[in-house]
Amino acid sequence: MEKILNYIEDGKERFLNELIEFLKFPSVSSLSKHKPDMLACANWLVEHIKSIGIEDVRLLETEGNPAVFAQWLGQPGAPTLLIYGHYDVQPVDPVELWETDPFEPLIKNNKIIARGTADDKGQLFCHLKALESFFKLNGKPPMNIKLFFEGDEESAGEYMEDFIKDNKDLLAADYVLISDTEWLNDNSPSICYALRGIAYFEIKLTGPNRDLHSGSYGGVVDNPANVLCWLINQLKDKYGRITIPNFYDKVVPLSKEERESFKKLPFNEEEYCKDLAVDALNGEFGYSALERVWGRPALDVNGMISGFTQEGAKTVLPTEASAKFSIRLVANQSAQEIVEQVEKYIKTLTPPTMKLEFFCHSIGSPVLVSKDNPAIRACYEAMKEAFGKEPVFIREGGSIPIVENFQSILKTPPALMGLGLPGDNIHSPNENFDLNNFYGGIKASALFMDKLLKHI
Amino acid sequence: MEKILNYIEDGKERFLNELIEFLKFPSVSSLSKHKPDMLACANWLVEHIKSIGIEDVRLLETEGNPAVFAQWLGQPGAPTLLIYGHYDVQPVDPVELWETDPFEPLIKNNKIIARGTADDKGQLFCHLKALESFFKLNGKPPMNIKLFFEGDEESAGEYMEDFIKDNKDLLAADYVLISDTEWLNDNSPSICYALRGIAYFEIKLTGPNRDLHSGSYGGVVDNPANVLCWLINQLKDKYGRITIPNFYDKVVPLSKEERESFKKLPFNEEEYCKDLAVDALNGEFGYSALERVWGRPALDVNGMISGFTQEGAKTVLPTEASAKFSIRLVANQSAQEIVEQVEKYIKTLTPPTMKLEFFCHSIGSPVLVSKDNPAIRACYEAMKEAFGKEPVFIREGGSIPIVENFQSILKTPPALMGLGLPGDNIHSPNENFDLNNFYGGIKASALFMDKLLKHI
Repeated sequence: MEKILNYIEDGKERFLNELIEFLKFPSVSSLSKHKPDMLACANWLVEHIKSIGIEDVRLLETEGNPAVFAQWLGQPGAPTLLIYGHYDVQPVDPVELWETDPFEPLIKNNKIIARGTADDKGQLFCHLKALESFFKLNGKPPMNIKLFFEGDEESAGEYMEDFIKDNKDLLAADYVLISDTEWLNDNSPSICYALRGIAYFEIKLTGPNRDLHSGSYGGVVDNPANVLCWLINQLKDKYGRITIPNFYDKVVPLSKEERESFKKLPFNEEEYCKDLAVDALNGEFGYSALERVWGRPALDVNGMISGFTQEGAKTVLPTEASAKFSIRLVANQSAQEIVEQVEKYIKTLTPPTMKLEFFCHSIGSPVLVSKDNPAIRACYEAMKEAFGKEPVFIREGGSIPIVENFQSILKTPPALMGLGLPGDNIHSPNENFDLNNFYGGIKASALFMDKLLKHI
Repeated sequence: MEKILNYIEDGKERFLNELIEFLKFPSVSSLSKHKPDMLACANWLVEHIKSIGIEDVRLLETEGNPAVFAQWLGQPGAPTLLIYGHYDVQPVDPVELWETDPFEPLIKNNKIIARGTADDKGQLFCHLKALESFFKLNGKPPMNIKLFFEGDEESAGEYMEDFIKDNKDLLAADYVLISDTEWLNDNSPSICYALRGIAYFEIKLTGPNRDLHSGSYGGVVDNPANVLCWLINQLKDKYGRITIPNFYDKVVPLSKEERESFKKLPFNEEEYCKDLAVDALNGEFGYSALERVWGRPALDVNGMISGFTQEGAKTVLPTEASAKFSIRLVANQSAQEIVEQVEKYIKTLTPPTMKLEFFCHSIGSPVLVSKDNPAIRACYEAMKEAFGKEPVFIREGGSIPIVENFQSILKTPPALMGLGLPGDNIHSPNENFDLNNFYGGIKASALFMDKLLKHI
C-alpha cells in the first residue's frame, strides 16, 4: 500500500485540477434549465471513469436524470464493492452571497469553494482517484467494483427505490461504500452507522364553510385554528413523548454501550446553543441532546397556516387550518406502520366539529447498521490511518432514503465513510471542501479496499 | 301621529328614489382612491339634511374622512336626541359576484340591492325621512335633534374615541339612537342591548436563529410551531373556559331572566349548523349557543403561520411561529385590564427556549345597557307598532366601539334600533335592504321620537 499512498501523494495537484473540471458543470438537478448540464456532467463522468481503467461504463436511463453506472468484475470469486455517490448539486441561490461564481472553483485557506465540492462531487471523486491508483500501479483494484452515481439526489426524485428494485441484479454487491456525510467536528473522522427514517404528513381541518366574523360566531362555532393547536399538542405528552398508540413498540432502545460512547463524544451543548441563539434545548425527557437527535423519534411541525396572516388585524374565525408535520423514526420502526398509526390517531382526535383531510407526503425507513461488520471495521481502520486520528461512530438525525434502500433491497449494510466537515456549507452559499479531507479521502478509500479484504 | 304615518306612507316612492341617489356615491372609506367620492357623498348628505329643514349642518374635520354633523335645538327644555349612523361603506370585491353594479341600485323581490343599502346608508336614511315628516307636517320634530354621521366606520379609523372626547359638548345628548344592527331573523324586530368588547393580540415566538433541518435538529431544538400550538392550547381549559388568571373576575353573569328570555327566542341550532355546514357547535361548557355568543367571553385564533406553507413538503424546523388571536369581552370586563392580564400570562407561559414578541392590535370595551331605560322602552313600542310584530331583545357577539364610546364618554345609554335582516349580505356581494324594513324603519323612527317623550 505504500506505493499506492505515494502515488496519491504525488498526484494531488492533478487530482485537484480534475475535480475543478468536474465542479464546473452546473449540474443542478432541480432546475430544468440545467438538463443539458446534467447530461454533459454525466458524460464527462463516464469518460473520466473510462480514463482510470474501467471499460464497462454506462448511462442508465431513469425517470429523471441519467445515473452513471460502471463495473469492473475482473476478480472472479473476490467480493464486490458498490460505491455510491451523486453528481447532481443543490441550486446556488442566493448567488450574491458567494465569494466566487459557484461553478468557478476558488482555492482559499486550503479549501476548495464551489457548489458540489462537499456534496457530493468532491467526496465521490475521492473513490475514483483511489481506484485510479490501483489501476495504474497494480493494473486492477483489490476486488470487484461497481460504481453508481445518481443525478437526482438533490431533486426529491421519488423513483430511486423502484429503480433500485428494478436494477437489483445489476447493482448487487457484497459491500456498499458511501461518502455523502460529514464529520462530527473538524478533528473527528466519523462513521455514521444509523440514520433516522421519516414520515411526512399534512392535515387540514375544515370547520364552518366560510370565514366567519369572530365577534358574531366566536365562542359558539369551533375554530379550526384552535382545534389544530389542540390536536398538534395532543401528539406529544408533557415529557416530550409521542402519544400515538403503539408508536414506540418497535423502537430499538439505545444500548448502554452507545449511550456511554455518545457521552465521550466532543459535543458542547453550550456552543451548540450559542450557534443557534437559543437559551435552552428541549426534547424527550431522560435523554441527552445527542441521544435524542440520533437515537430517538421526534415529531416536528414543519409548517402551519390558518386565517388572516397579513399585516394588521382581521376579526376572522377561519374556515380552515392546516399543518405539515413530520415524524423522524428510528430502527426498527416501519414507516408504513407509523403512517397507519398516525392516520388512525389523527382521525380519532378529530372532533365532530371538524372535517379532516389527511395526507402522507413521503416516507423513509430508518437504518441501523451493525458496527460488527467487515465494511465498518475496514472503514474505521482506513480513516484512522488516512487521517491520523481516531474515528468516532456517530448516528445522523436526518434521513438518506437510498441508504435504507441499499440495506433493504440489496441486503447490503452500507459503510458511510463521511468526508465532509460541519463548516462545509452544503446547501448554502460558499459550499467548500477541505483539501486535507479531499486528499485524505482518496487515501482512506484506497486503504478501505485493502483492509476490507483482510476483514472478510 | 296618524298624519305623520300617512305622510310616510305617501312618500315611499320619493324616499326610495332619494335613497338611490345617496347609494350611488361609491363612498368606500378604506380605499384612498374613493376620497373624492367620500367628500361628494358627505356634501350630498349635508345638502339633503338642509333640505328636510335643519339649517345648522356642518362637515366636521377628522383625522380621516369628514363627519356630517347637524343640530336643531329649537325646543329649549325638551330632551335632546343624538342619532348616529355612517355614510361610508365596505369595499365591493369580489365585484364579479354582484347581480348589479354595486353603486347602481337594483330593485328586486322587494329589496334594494347595492353597497351600503343595509350598512348603513339605508338605515341612516330612515331617520332623516322621519325627521322630514315632522318638519313638513309640524314645522319641527318633537324634541331637540343632533345628527352625527361618520365616514370611517368601515375603515378601522382609530381616532373616533378621541374625536368624541374632543367634541363631547357638541355631541352631548340625553338619548342616542343608532340603527346599524340587524334582526334576529326576518320576523323579529330586534333591539340589541349588549355588545361584546374585544382585545386583539399578535404573538411571535422565535426559537433558533434560522430555519433548521428537521432531521438534523428535530427532537433536540424546541420547535416554535409546536410551542405555539401548546401555548395557544394553554389559554383554554377542557371546558372551554379561558385560563388567564383573574380573567372572569369582573364578568357580569347572565341573569336568570336573560337566560330564560334567550331560550324563548326563535333560534334553531340545527338550521344554524346547516348554514355553516358543521355537524356540531362547541364552546364554553354549560352555556347555550346564544348565551355563549352574546353573553360569554370567547378566545379565537384569527390567523397563524409558521414554517413552510407552500405546496409540497420541506423538512424544516422553523425559526419562528406567529399567531393573531382575539378575545371577546363582556360587561364589565375592562379591555385595558385584560390586555395586561394576557401579556403577563403569555410571558409566564413562554418557555426559556423561545423569545416572545407580544403586541396588542386594538381594544374595545363591552357594552351592556339596562333595558329599564326610556329610550329602550320607546324603541320597543315604536318597532312593535311600525312592524306589527313583538320585538325581541338580543345581544350581539361583535363589537361596535362607538356604542361603548357614547356610553362611557357621553354618559348616554344608546338604543340600538336594528333595521337590517340576517340575509342582507352586509360586507358581501349583493348587499341589500328589505323595502318593508326601509319604510317600516322610517315609521319606527318617527314613532320612537313621539313615544320617547311619553316615557320620560
